[in-house]
Amino acid sequence: MQIAMINDKIVAADKLEPAYLDRGTFFGDGVYEVVRSYNGKIFVLEEHLQRFANSLSAIGITGADIDEIRKRVQKAFEAADISNAKIYFHITRGSGPRNHTFNASLKPNFFLTVTELPNDTEEKSKGIAVSTHPDWRWKRCDIKSLNLLANVLARQDALQKGCGEAIFVDENGLITEGAGSAFFAILGQALQTAPLKANILPSITRKFTIKAAKNIGLEIVEKSLTSQQAKEVDELFIAVTTKDIVPVVKFDSQIIGDGKPGRYTKLLMQEFRTFTG
Amino acid sequence: MQIAMINDKIVAADKLEPAYLDRGTFFGDGVYEVVRSYNGKIFVLEEHLQRFANSLSAIGITGADIDEIRKRVQKAFEAADISNAKIYFHITRGSGPRNHTFNASLKPNFFLTVTELPNDTEEKSKGIAVSTHPDWRWKRCDIKSLNLLANVLARQDALQKGCGEAIFVDENGLITEGAGSAFFAILGQALQTAPLKANILPSITRKFTIKAAKNIGLEIVEKSLTSQQAKEVDELFIAVTTKDIVPVVKFDSQIIGDGKPGRYTKLLMQEFRTFTG
Repeated sequence: MQIAMINDKIVAADKLEPAYLDRGTFFGDGVYEVVRSYNGKIFVLEEHLQRFANSLSAIGITGADIDEIRKRVQKAFEAADISNAKIYFHITRGSGPRNHTFNASLKPNFFLTVTELPNDTEEKSKGIAVSTHPDWRWKRCDIKSLNLLANVLARQDALQKGCGEAIFVDENGLITEGAGSAFFAILGQALQTAPLKANILPSITRKFTIKAAKNIGLEIVEKSLTSQQAKEVDELFIAVTTKDIVPVVKFDSQIIGDGKPGRYTKLLMQEFRTFTG
Repeated sequence: MQIAMINDKIVAADKLEPAYLDRGTFFGDGVYEVVRSYNGKIFVLEEHLQRFANSLSAIGITGADIDEIRKRVQKAFEAADISNAKIYFHITRGSGPRNHTFNASLKPNFFLTVTELPNDTEEKSKGIAVSTHPDWRWKRCDIKSLNLLANVLARQDALQKGCGEAIFVDENGLITEGAGSAFFAILGQALQTAPLKANILPSITRKFTIKAAKNIGLEIVEKSLTSQQAKEVDELFIAVTTKDIVPVVKFDSQIIGDGKPGRYTKLLMQEFRTFTG
């Protein structure tokens, strides 16, 4: 590369900040995690670090040390001194001239932010509306990668429809998951959610939701729902790291149940508190 | 966001360079183009600018002025003073705290590089080997977006197999296109390539290749090939902005024809020269 241009300014190649040559920007060539704290304590950090290690390995990013990342997360969390914090971090394969192929000498870039979580009391007590969107994502959603344009477009579409989350529907008409959450239904005394495959993120909140459901005696059914089926169930909710369980009271304009958070959803929210302390 | 961390260094949120908060990195929330010059003249810049405008519009990035972008491309190209140059440019939706949703007040980020093209005489005269890879890309490959991790992984896989390009095969066993190129076969006196749908980039080099094929009297067949079919055709080649037509002489270890660039491929390369001057 001989010269670069940032907005309307020409910059010599050797004067360019590495951030401008990040493979994260050129290709989305990186993976990320979001963890949160409850009352000053990070929730299941080890599970997130394990998933992060899996994501790094799946796309062949080597040279990132999980022990080092754990230390950084803890250091930043302590420095921020926020009781209910969202901690976002990503690693990209590194910075360099734009070539699809890479070699092992690239030095991964680590980036992290700590943000105070907004109050979610209203969402959790009243529930949210969701809208469906075609699942345009890539075929390896089991990897938590930075290729998130489909999620952005779906969430923006939901926002424009006055909804708090977009629910992805695949080309066979089956619900996969939310644009940033796992998706659950309650039918009778069963909790239903899509099975974990390459088209689903192995959500950690999903795992703890299933644990909570078992604790309160629900049957677990890992089977995808269609949009039509989702409109006819007793209860719906989403689960996401930053808010754990959030009731869904409207699905594509269809009111679910009596339009209020369902009985089991509320029990699950309560049960989830026993994990988070 | 209260604090950030770049590698092992804590940075106050208000001291962070906007490049670190680029939605291009967080989400691949941007689109790009690659144009090239032949002997000091940019080839079909207007076609690329039109496709760029289409990509921007498809993901709802407003506030990017195509006339301004044209001026920047020309200014950078002149400043670089390279006869056979590759000009890469992207626009991301802007920089800001990481939220999937966005509002129209975001200021798009423009980034461009000019690089001297490597000599491709050997590739063009001897041809290249290609290998297949599952098409893991998202479902809107008609948009030239920065979500390119599937392309990176496929190209790296090809490199490890000693191949110059990866050819994507979808879940039905049909070839879509190359990880960074359009894919063509010659059967008898026909040129065959996949039809333009949402799973294919509307390649500008593809368009001019088809024009060249018509000029030399080939029939055009827009129909996808299976991997097995690709192994049994008379000739194969890829087409890409930076190199136009490159013969393919080996497909997943199967030698194509007599292992040398085919007769029509060579005629097409010649005919392409009449467009590029």
